[in-house]
Amino acid sequence: MASGKKSQKDFSAQLENKVRLVNKVIGRILSKPGLIGSELKESVRYSLEGPGKRIRSAMVLWCCELIAGRANHDAGIAAAAIEMVHTYSLIHDDLPAIDDDDYRRGRLTSHRKFDEATAILTGDALLTLAFELLAKEIEKPQIAMRLINELAEAAGPAGMVAGQMADLKAASRRTDENMLRRIHTNKTAKMFRCAAAMGGICGGANERQLKCLREYGIKVGLGFQIADDILDVSASSVQLGKTSGKDARQGKATYPAIVGLDKSKKLAKKLADEAVAALKPFGKKSDTLRRLVTMLLNRTK
Amino acid sequence: MASGKKSQKDFSAQLENKVRLVNKVIGRILSKPGLIGSELKESVRYSLEGPGKRIRSAMVLWCCELIAGRANHDAGIAAAAIEMVHTYSLIHDDLPAIDDDDYRRGRLTSHRKFDEATAILTGDALLTLAFELLAKEIEKPQIAMRLINELAEAAGPAGMVAGQMADLKAASRRTDENMLRRIHTNKTAKMFRCAAAMGGICGGANERQLKCLREYGIKVGLGFQIADDILDVSASSVQLGKTSGKDARQGKATYPAIVGLDKSKKLAKKLADEAVAALKPFGKKSDTLRRLVTMLLNRTK
Repeated sequence: MASGKKSQKDFSAQLENKVRLVNKVIGRILSKPGLIGSELKESVRYSLEGPGKRIRSAMVLWCCELIAGRANHDAGIAAAAIEMVHTYSLIHDDLPAIDDDDYRRGRLTSHRKFDEATAILTGDALLTLAFELLAKEIEKPQIAMRLINELAEAAGPAGMVAGQMADLKAASRRTDENMLRRIHTNKTAKMFRCAAAMGGICGGANERQLKCLREYGIKVGLGFQIADDILDVSASSVQLGKTSGKDARQGKATYPAIVGLDKSKKLAKKLADEAVAALKPFGKKSDTLRRLVTMLLNRTK
Repeated sequence: MASGKKSQKDFSAQLENKVRLVNKVIGRILSKPGLIGSELKESVRYSLEGPGKRIRSAMVLWCCELIAGRANHDAGIAAAAIEMVHTYSLIHDDLPAIDDDDYRRGRLTSHRKFDEATAILTGDALLTLAFELLAKEIEKPQIAMRLINELAEAAGPAGMVAGQMADLKAASRRTDENMLRRIHTNKTAKMFRCAAAMGGICGGANERQLKCLREYGIKVGLGFQIADDILDVSASSVQLGKTSGKDARQGKATYPAIVGLDKSKKLAKKLADEAVAALKPFGKKSDTLRRLVTMLLNRTK
């Protein structure tokens, strides 16, 4: 028990360490002259420097560390890029025409803090900047290309955007478990898989290692989304930093709505076990990635 | 006079030829299995296959041809990518929160044909797809990187998006000619410069050639935007395929509003001359790019 608590404390310290590293890279990018027009600086900064959990970017850094022994320069850039794409997706999802949310991460959403036009354009700017960053700052073109391809595939018209579109169209009564899994895979899990793969690529992973990391990422992502659905029905708005109970009111297709709360919890546990199993070939070195699974699935906010 | 008419006819045939080529590449991409989720196929197709003028993509192809003697595979991909980014920008600009337009290219805008959420996500999908395409289909990573960098710089937070943001904030009475030129440079001209540069890069242009092409692109782009402002006050909605006289009603900062119609026409002519002058080192081989200037600045729709 005492050692469990200690390892939990270790993990939190390591996560904080990674969050600091990502924030440092982001800070450096934001202050680069000429990269962001003066018209967009404030709104880009507001959303990107908000108190995000930085899970996807920490995953990039840890997966690179697992393969290469340390989080290198390329991993820092890839981490910042995925954080930009994630942030853009939140800004657009929160728009009145999509999820219509006033709060995110405990603060006003971009369109509420500024206005709708600013929120749309700030999202567009962040998405484009992510690719610009990878093209400009990754040393080897061959690595940059693979990272850009991973990120675009995960975020684009056969990934996150498709998932968001399907999510909007899906009402809980017309959606079955298979369909819901497809939506969650596209909307959420592919970006986690992308994070793990980007980290591996930056670290110089071989194909066999990349396959394990991808498997880990997709299972973590699916589990994370189910945990998110569960939180929406069980946590308060203050805990979440965004409006709780909203999925149900909007008639959204979620795991609790479709398979019930108990089965949702069992499914999340099963996915967590599968994620951990995918790390087996890496042995003890992958302890932090294992703890990340526990943290994500037991979170209360 | 007869030879003028003939060369005009030649030019139109050559433009049609390039439009066909771009449309063919776009058609091939749209029908690739797995690249675009089923949820987005219809809306992506609707906007991307609309009757666009394909000026930017034709410029990519012609600039490659100028350098390499023919429009190669890479130029076709770059042309399709820039067309996707241009199309995304139109979809988002037309949204109610931004320019609030019901018609574009003579047809309903995306949010009027479908709905706002679909229009936002379709734009996001097209922007991401452009980078995915360049990462996947350009043969040499070194070339792909340069193209992605050019496109992201032109379209991103120090380019088109910044221009659009500044444009929204600028009311005609508070904007001077310098500020207007900065807006037009970001909003429009950088994408033309990008088209010319991408074509040059695909064709293997050296630095000196690239510099001329960039100069050509930026001058054409600025002239094109002034001509567009002039058309908005002088042409009918039927001619334009979009609502005319809208800039003035929205109090937008345009050249006619700020320097008057006569001076606007003179400025457009001056920019056209400068664009043509930038082509001088290429001699007769650049005739088509010269004619493109004339066509763009004399257009009536």
